[in-house]
Amino acid sequence: MSPANRLTIDDSNFFREAVGENGLRTADLEQQAPRLEDLRKRLKEGRDKGESGFFGLPFQPEHLEVSRHWGERITSRFGQLLVLGMGGSSLGGEMLVHCLGGSEPRVEVRFLDNVDPERMEETLAGIRWSRCCVLAVSKSGGTAETLAQLLALLPRLERAVGRARVPEHLVALTESSGGALGRIAADLGAPVVRHPPVGGRYSVLSPVGLIPGYAAGADVEGLVAGAESMAERCLAEGMEANPAFRGGTAQYLLAERGLTQSVQLPYYERLDKVTSWYRQLWAESLGKLDAEGAHRGLTPVRAMGATDQHSQLQLYLQGPRDKQFTFFLAEGLEGAGSRIPSRYVDLEAVAPLAGHTVGELLSAELRATRETLARNGRPSRTLRFAALDAPLLGELIMLLEVETVVVAELLGVDPFDQPAVEESKVLTREYLAGMAGPG
Amino acid sequence: MSPANRLTIDDSNFFREAVGENGLRTADLEQQAPRLEDLRKRLKEGRDKGESGFFGLPFQPEHLEVSRHWGERITSRFGQLLVLGMGGSSLGGEMLVHCLGGSEPRVEVRFLDNVDPERMEETLAGIRWSRCCVLAVSKSGGTAETLAQLLALLPRLERAVGRARVPEHLVALTESSGGALGRIAADLGAPVVRHPPVGGRYSVLSPVGLIPGYAAGADVEGLVAGAESMAERCLAEGMEANPAFRGGTAQYLLAERGLTQSVQLPYYERLDKVTSWYRQLWAESLGKLDAEGAHRGLTPVRAMGATDQHSQLQLYLQGPRDKQFTFFLAEGLEGAGSRIPSRYVDLEAVAPLAGHTVGELLSAELRATRETLARNGRPSRTLRFAALDAPLLGELIMLLEVETVVVAELLGVDPFDQPAVEESKVLTREYLAGMAGPG
Repeated sequence: MSPANRLTIDDSNFFREAVGENGLRTADLEQQAPRLEDLRKRLKEGRDKGESGFFGLPFQPEHLEVSRHWGERITSRFGQLLVLGMGGSSLGGEMLVHCLGGSEPRVEVRFLDNVDPERMEETLAGIRWSRCCVLAVSKSGGTAETLAQLLALLPRLERAVGRARVPEHLVALTESSGGALGRIAADLGAPVVRHPPVGGRYSVLSPVGLIPGYAAGADVEGLVAGAESMAERCLAEGMEANPAFRGGTAQYLLAERGLTQSVQLPYYERLDKVTSWYRQLWAESLGKLDAEGAHRGLTPVRAMGATDQHSQLQLYLQGPRDKQFTFFLAEGLEGAGSRIPSRYVDLEAVAPLAGHTVGELLSAELRATRETLARNGRPSRTLRFAALDAPLLGELIMLLEVETVVVAELLGVDPFDQPAVEESKVLTREYLAGMAGPG
Repeated sequence: MSPANRLTIDDSNFFREAVGENGLRTADLEQQAPRLEDLRKRLKEGRDKGESGFFGLPFQPEHLEVSRHWGERITSRFGQLLVLGMGGSSLGGEMLVHCLGGSEPRVEVRFLDNVDPERMEETLAGIRWSRCCVLAVSKSGGTAETLAQLLALLPRLERAVGRARVPEHLVALTESSGGALGRIAADLGAPVVRHPPVGGRYSVLSPVGLIPGYAAGADVEGLVAGAESMAERCLAEGMEANPAFRGGTAQYLLAERGLTQSVQLPYYERLDKVTSWYRQLWAESLGKLDAEGAHRGLTPVRAMGATDQHSQLQLYLQGPRDKQFTFFLAEGLEGAGSRIPSRYVDLEAVAPLAGHTVGELLSAELRATRETLARNGRPSRTLRFAALDAPLLGELIMLLEVETVVVAELLGVDPFDQPAVEESKVLTREYLAGMAGPG
């Protein structure tokens, strides 16, 4: 990894000097530091003892080995990989494929992450079963949508390749062989890859994300190396040297002042799936009751520059003061894209554009939006890098994961559970039971 | 339009009986009615006098005629339509193409709604210029990104078809021929279609949305007829009979109680572009200062069922009480999709699914999520219809537009301006001027 491409964080617009009374003071951050000492120790122990929480994943070579093994098997035999998975079983892989996949990958990776009948039929219609491997991902093994997807497509797969060859075309990724997915795989004779004991939303650096990433041609070694280097930075003592402790604490403090919506604003469309992965990580990890039974949490908001300047900026500037912003700036894009020809320069609207690249326009818009937000008292920070490559994405993933855990620690909530969603699963089964069965 | 497919609105979960103290009382709605009388008169006069605000668009046959004329010209000569436009110049058309376009349309419609250099090159690389018509849309004619897009692609178009034939491949859609876009079109000899005097975010029922929609095979007549019928319903006196007055007022009242985030939650992927169109409409129309200088506005939040049950539901149920919800339920989907075979029914996780269609699972999940939100004191409403067709989408568009104007009236803000975004445009030009020109 070129040091010039490391992730750097400019949070100056989080502070009073830039945004006035809505901003933070350095002393506010320092004040929180003792509350995070215990978390820092837990993270360090997790790494040193080889514990298998999310923070330990990049330090455990087995995940990379298993992923490479299955990735190679898939790329050597198949032209398509169909990933079945909901939420964290899908979003991490989608991010890797979208950000790091080659434009002409050996294996085309598709994701089925819903049970919309139209969309599902459309996706399945594009599958050539004889050349396709199905990767079914469910940590518990009992995810209703994933089981429905698998059972619904199984007859097609069996018709296309023959029942005896199904085990060659199916891989299950689940934590226990005793769950429904594991038992179906066993019955079919299909292999089971072990899901690590981390929640789906923290699983991207395990086979859950790495197998699809490898199949799409991503540099998974570079990714994990980047994550590892950021993890080391996130063990540093003191706010100044620890990017995630500083970033998480700052976002927490702004939220305590009422800025509870956290807008992720890349000026780079290739990062679109980063914000959808992050949106789950943030929402499911933070949106819950604290020990006193208070409703806590920040709401992640996905946006995209420069497009959303023509959609959301008016609200961001003059709407309620309830938002904080994270910009993503890929500095290498500045020189990219067509150069706008020096033509019609006599027109007032054209003159400023002439001779600049499209990338320069994009970059100038980011800088202008950031400055305008600051002048309107709206705090923001900028994650900055030269180019989006695997080590950089690894750094970014680990930064955002540790920040999430930091915010949870300060809010007093458990970042690893999701206690509220069980009720709707029970109700779904009740409603299904009440529907007429097949005629 | 079949009456069975009309849009119906079930807002029972907005009320106390369903969600407890967070809910509304019918009397709360009635109390606001006098504040909307003036708006009702203005809308009625606008329709009767043929005024050209957004509400009058479906009553003015010229928009349909102009759109049909250009749509026919495009479909008879071209295989691709490339729309250049930012925000409201693009989002309405994208919605029509995505929701109503045929699966194998005569004309493939693409949109360039950003200046991301990678994405732009990717889009332009897929254009066959000799078979492509470029539609450049900018109400003011001076939108920087749209001008940059046009000027950057012009050399490619000229090289491919020859300078003399450019006028056949380019249509400008702008309000005044004196703006930069109009003057460039005049210089090139390309036709100019008149943008109606409504803001981009209210322009979908004009040529801005209808030309791309027509080109993609949408039933634009049915769309406008649906909008017209909803507009008539939105003139009714009394809260009970007027769906937009009731819906807008309810959302306003919930926002005044702190539920300032409005989550749009379709269980139907084909509606994805409806929520992105709506997100702009809502944010730019409502997020601004009122007469007393207070920061007003509601934040639109896009979501998608059932996928986001595995991403956002935990936050929605146990996070801060700051959200209200609008579900979109396409009842016709229930019977759609594969039937889940009765296999492995001895497994506890599989038994409830067996014999049901994928659409039934999706529908049961919507109902379960809605009920769980209610039990947790989170208000929601459901927009319900049999199937997504052009008249239905027209009804939906007009409902959401009038609701937006109703909320603005109650908040005391002007739904038709966007005063805050000018500052960042000025800064963008300054930053561009400070960047080194071509080397």
